[in-house]
Amino acid sequence: MQKNKLTGTDHKYLQIAGSLEQMIHNDILKIGDKLPSVRMLSDEYGISMGTAFQAYYYLEGKGLIESRPKSGYYVRFNQKRFPALPAAAKPEAVAETISVDEMVAAVFKKLSATDITNLALAAPAMELIPAAKLNKSLVHAFRHSASSCLNYEDVQGNLELRKQVARMAFNWGGKVNANEVVITAGCMEALSLSLQTVTRPGDTVAIESPTFFGIFQVMQSLGLHVIEIPTDAVTGIDLNYLEQAIKQSNIKACVFVPSFNNPLGCCMPDENKKALVELITKHRIPLIEDDIYGELYFGQHRPRCCKTYDTEGWVMYCSSVSKSLAPGYRIGWTIPGRFKEQFIRLKMRHTISGVTLTQHTMAHFLGIGRFDYHLKKLRSALHTQQLRYVQGIIDHFPADTKISRPQGGFVLWLELNKKVNTFQLYQEAIKYQVSVAPGRIFSMRDRYSNYMRIGYGQPWNDAVERGIRILGSLAKKLS
Amino acid sequence: MQKNKLTGTDHKYLQIAGSLEQMIHNDILKIGDKLPSVRMLSDEYGISMGTAFQAYYYLEGKGLIESRPKSGYYVRFNQKRFPALPAAAKPEAVAETISVDEMVAAVFKKLSATDITNLALAAPAMELIPAAKLNKSLVHAFRHSASSCLNYEDVQGNLELRKQVARMAFNWGGKVNANEVVITAGCMEALSLSLQTVTRPGDTVAIESPTFFGIFQVMQSLGLHVIEIPTDAVTGIDLNYLEQAIKQSNIKACVFVPSFNNPLGCCMPDENKKALVELITKHRIPLIEDDIYGELYFGQHRPRCCKTYDTEGWVMYCSSVSKSLAPGYRIGWTIPGRFKEQFIRLKMRHTISGVTLTQHTMAHFLGIGRFDYHLKKLRSALHTQQLRYVQGIIDHFPADTKISRPQGGFVLWLELNKKVNTFQLYQEAIKYQVSVAPGRIFSMRDRYSNYMRIGYGQPWNDAVERGIRILGSLAKKLS
Repeated sequence: MQKNKLTGTDHKYLQIAGSLEQMIHNDILKIGDKLPSVRMLSDEYGISMGTAFQAYYYLEGKGLIESRPKSGYYVRFNQKRFPALPAAAKPEAVAETISVDEMVAAVFKKLSATDITNLALAAPAMELIPAAKLNKSLVHAFRHSASSCLNYEDVQGNLELRKQVARMAFNWGGKVNANEVVITAGCMEALSLSLQTVTRPGDTVAIESPTFFGIFQVMQSLGLHVIEIPTDAVTGIDLNYLEQAIKQSNIKACVFVPSFNNPLGCCMPDENKKALVELITKHRIPLIEDDIYGELYFGQHRPRCCKTYDTEGWVMYCSSVSKSLAPGYRIGWTIPGRFKEQFIRLKMRHTISGVTLTQHTMAHFLGIGRFDYHLKKLRSALHTQQLRYVQGIIDHFPADTKISRPQGGFVLWLELNKKVNTFQLYQEAIKYQVSVAPGRIFSMRDRYSNYMRIGYGQPWNDAVERGIRILGSLAKKLS
Repeated sequence: MQKNKLTGTDHKYLQIAGSLEQMIHNDILKIGDKLPSVRMLSDEYGISMGTAFQAYYYLEGKGLIESRPKSGYYVRFNQKRFPALPAAAKPEAVAETISVDEMVAAVFKKLSATDITNLALAAPAMELIPAAKLNKSLVHAFRHSASSCLNYEDVQGNLELRKQVARMAFNWGGKVNANEVVITAGCMEALSLSLQTVTRPGDTVAIESPTFFGIFQVMQSLGLHVIEIPTDAVTGIDLNYLEQAIKQSNIKACVFVPSFNNPLGCCMPDENKKALVELITKHRIPLIEDDIYGELYFGQHRPRCCKTYDTEGWVMYCSSVSKSLAPGYRIGWTIPGRFKEQFIRLKMRHTISGVTLTQHTMAHFLGIGRFDYHLKKLRSALHTQQLRYVQGIIDHFPADTKISRPQGGFVLWLELNKKVNTFQLYQEAIKYQVSVAPGRIFSMRDRYSNYMRIGYGQPWNDAVERGIRILGSLAKKLS
């Protein structure tokens, strides 16, 4: 490699920083690219490691790069190019009966098709999953079970697995014991049974807007009315709006995704989560907290949960391993607070108990620390992928495209020019074997038709680049 | 072995038959005992095999013994000792909101306790399950899946498994293809989602009386009203009564167990099943058919199903492997007829999809013919166990005890003297580590308090004999 030689009288670190800044500015170093290690930089420029560190500190201070623990320095998301975040819609607080959404069926019916570049998904690619390690836990599970895991499991769920879930809660400041945990068939069953525990048909429930369509579709099936609460792309639920809605409507429950909301990716600040719990506790309204993305944070610390601040048991915490490890295992859980007994009774009545084998397997996998290890790697991979996808969108989408800046999770939320109908775009893209989630499916009302959700669970590759390029071209054509 | 010598002038076969008859009469040969093979008999008495056959034909003709294919001759259930079958209650056809049943929780909360002789269960003992063979299919499943069965399964269920379910339907005269089948988390989810597909809260549903408490408990959770239809211990549902109830009440669905009803054990004759389907079709009332015990028949042929006679898609057929193979796998299925699309949508909304791994495993186990082979052995074992349990009850229970004569399934239904309160008996028995299901839990109304259900899923052994003896002694004490 040809070495860079330093000249002139500036501080050496400033010269180096300036040259790196220029490379970032000119897109030679792209968002998400890894920078040389400090040792390599010192070697390349013939400077001390201290000077190399100084150059990186300087760029980090300017917000151009960021360090990641045990990994190194990376080009940071460049806010200057995207001054505006996608705007939050301000829906009227009118309760309504939910209408069936045919679009969801259209977009997600081809889930298993292998000839499609599927950017509609919010799930990790299989290559990010440690299948062989998990299979070792599986073999261990059935070999060490007296009944080969063929008999009924405890209705509340496998005790060892519940202990592990309680242990994980410690990471978000939860003081939980195994007896407070109930295992479910994925997060979806946890949400569905939580809703059935605290509502009756005809009741009104508050959700975020935009939000994952599965949340209002299950409400539709349960005969519930829905109020959509405006949600900010950075701070989440509009608490003032929610408080007003509570005063005006007889809200019987809230279902929110406070950490890395799908599709916005926003994470409510701790103080907002605390305030939210105080608000719902004051009004004795159960909060069903969907924390399915909570472990997939890119920052230094796991975000707290609403459940962290729940002193009176009004929060029904729900999560699963479906987004981080094994969707096909259907392992989720809930910490239903004061509603535990009713929840368990409902679970027994609808499905008796969960699958014994996958619960034993997961208990073992968590117990030997494999899940923690896997999550560290997964977070790092997702962060890198997100930055690479963002760069791809910058490269190929219209210049007026606005984009979310999630600090965790799987999805980017894009706001396009108002002229672009993203369902129409979806229909065009599918002709090229590219799928994307149109914004319209994230609300029960006629909203977000110029938005789209792009999942970055697949590592960047030629097929993904082609997909992003095609979506970008179609967006340009339609705008 | 000392040989028996024949003397006198009678036909030899009559002498031998007479001596066996005497042994049966004196309880030397007990119900369910296997008789010597024809070869052994001929050897023992020094007669030809033809004469030995003639002796057995004669006893079979008198109803004292029975032949079982590929197994030999057995002492038959002796009807003379139990002239009366348990009587069917004739409840009034008044719809009512179901009240919570605390007894069920009391009886079934200790399901996993190993220090209890549990005669309350309606499930096979683990020693009757081919765990090693099933584990081979499990290993095959995850090794031959591209994603190690970690990814989401098709919402409708694994295609290979659906093909196998369709193939099994052929045995009961069903002409079904894989596209008509939906996989569920056990039979309970199939029943629960079927009910949610065709009813709304406040609707009225007809069930058998007595019936499995899980059926009316899930209805309670769904806010449904229930009409109990009298059910005969031999012929099942009283069709005239049902027709009157349909005329008088606005029945929105029926949930029946037409083959080997739990707890009665009765199996509706084919012509009654046909008439039932004609009745519900005429009135356009969905029939949710719970066929979970259908494969566990003791006769020559598998009983037909109501679904066999369903030409217009009003029957929602539900079954599972939970009673015959692996309750902990939570594999069930439904053939929902005209309600298929709504059923699949509900399933997706409540749980997204089922567990991939156990579906693949079961598809393989069924595909290689292992399930058919296992069922043959299981039926034979259960039949033997039933006869042995009946003998034990005869030996230890009060003489006025009436007992059901199921031709399949897992359970005996006992009617005791009216003075005996079987919940009280249960409470006494549990002090001796013996559990049994009191009759009261098989109805929502105050019925069957002098009945009890005894499961014979466990092979006869000293612990079971002790359990039956204790139950019998308590019954004598209380009557």
